[in-house]
Amino acid sequence: MSGRTARRRVLRVTVSPDGPAETSPRADFLAGEEPLGIRVDGAAVTMTMRTPGDDVELAAGFLVSEAVVRSAADIASIKLCDGTSCGHGDHDGLGNIADVVLASGVLVAPGARRNFMTTSACGVCGKASIEDICVLPHAALSADETRFSPAVLASLPGRLRSAQRVFSRTGGLHAAGLFTAAGEVVAVREDVGRHNAVDKIVGWALLDGRLPLGGCALLVSGRASFELVQKAVLAGIPLLAAVSAPSSLAVSLAEEAGLTLVGFLRGQSMNVYAGAHRLVA
Amino acid sequence: MSGRTARRRVLRVTVSPDGPAETSPRADFLAGEEPLGIRVDGAAVTMTMRTPGDDVELAAGFLVSEAVVRSAADIASIKLCDGTSCGHGDHDGLGNIADVVLASGVLVAPGARRNFMTTSACGVCGKASIEDICVLPHAALSADETRFSPAVLASLPGRLRSAQRVFSRTGGLHAAGLFTAAGEVVAVREDVGRHNAVDKIVGWALLDGRLPLGGCALLVSGRASFELVQKAVLAGIPLLAAVSAPSSLAVSLAEEAGLTLVGFLRGQSMNVYAGAHRLVA
Repeated sequence: MSGRTARRRVLRVTVSPDGPAETSPRADFLAGEEPLGIRVDGAAVTMTMRTPGDDVELAAGFLVSEAVVRSAADIASIKLCDGTSCGHGDHDGLGNIADVVLASGVLVAPGARRNFMTTSACGVCGKASIEDICVLPHAALSADETRFSPAVLASLPGRLRSAQRVFSRTGGLHAAGLFTAAGEVVAVREDVGRHNAVDKIVGWALLDGRLPLGGCALLVSGRASFELVQKAVLAGIPLLAAVSAPSSLAVSLAEEAGLTLVGFLRGQSMNVYAGAHRLVA
Repeated sequence: MSGRTARRRVLRVTVSPDGPAETSPRADFLAGEEPLGIRVDGAAVTMTMRTPGDDVELAAGFLVSEAVVRSAADIASIKLCDGTSCGHGDHDGLGNIADVVLASGVLVAPGARRNFMTTSACGVCGKASIEDICVLPHAALSADETRFSPAVLASLPGRLRSAQRVFSRTGGLHAAGLFTAAGEVVAVREDVGRHNAVDKIVGWALLDGRLPLGGCALLVSGRASFELVQKAVLAGIPLLAAVSAPSSLAVSLAEEAGLTLVGFLRGQSMNVYAGAHRLVA
């Protein structure tokens, strides 16, 4: 495993209207991207391209998002190995492997290995039939009566940015932030994939005994996809906000699950696509 | 299948410093997002969340990106079915299925079904071992001697935006554009996933007999991941440009494969991370 960032030499090129382009070599920091394989009870179940760091949490959050585990007690252990120490011969040490051992009695459903062949960059893929894509439990979020103030919500993007450690160096990372309804930062994670960033937060909450995350708001950089809605719902988060647009299916699922979905959260404005009753006037 | 966009009712909320937040209902267009299942010779191999449209091309491009096919002759047929007409009982009509029949003699490699369990949102996931993630052929791009002018490259983001049809309505779509070295638009595709947008372009090129795409530049909105570099290389495209940052692994693979990788292509400037020899002074 290398780091969250990588220093590389880059050629900066600027077009000049009056002559040849100007070029200048410089050093640049890039967001780290490496594969992480996830094994469950000895079986390789998925691989995701992620920014190194918080890998145990990422593996745990992945299992929450796949509806395999619901509490820290469902996991016996998660260990990271680099391909040289864990005795597995089928990877080359290029990246890491997270070896998950489930608690006794916690089983991956029959056929789930197929469903597992997915990605934290999407979470709904690799499923062999369309019916498989929705792993939501029947318990809805509707019972969560938390209310959120628009003024607090408007402050979250700034708070997320302030809490980001890597973005300012690379410009290349997505971020997810978990906040209380009062706007206090609970957790912030970054990754080349915002889905991984969310899994890292959810996994952290799982391992810290905080699931379900009732009363919290989750903010993601970029857009809100179906999958991100799914992750929020499975973690019990009543409000998902995105800096950019949601997709059609994200809105449909949010309505169905009782999630408040906020998009285009920028400046002093936002669009509420579902669950507007949770916003206080 | 519904459409590329969906019209939804949304509540616009604006925070006011002097009183309660102002709210106004309005209609908003969202980017369509629906699952597309891809079958090859009768076997379900993957599912991707995509924006409906250009689905045949998306399926074809996926197979190029997975190094299964290299020319249109490798594919006997691709048909779309909606789950009600094709006799398959294992999907519910929620989305579409692209049924691909490979040409006689074109085979999915043994074990490839496992490798297929991937996603167009990532393309390297669902692989059961890290060694599987790189499906690049040994032929490198190094022989492509096309040269690109920085001034032309700087003009591409504007040309891409002009050619986008859906983005201006939804604000929620990624785009990929294929250009000649002179800056002429060859093809533009949009999708909730920029990886899908690239697959749609590559699939179109495959079916139109244009692969490999020597002499072309591919521009993507957002960041440049390992997977996008992989897709460009497999399509024979010598230059990949991104509006935002590349990842560390994207740069490493570009260097290895002989791809010119440009990032932060904004205004009159850009960063060249690999293959700078293809830029004319």
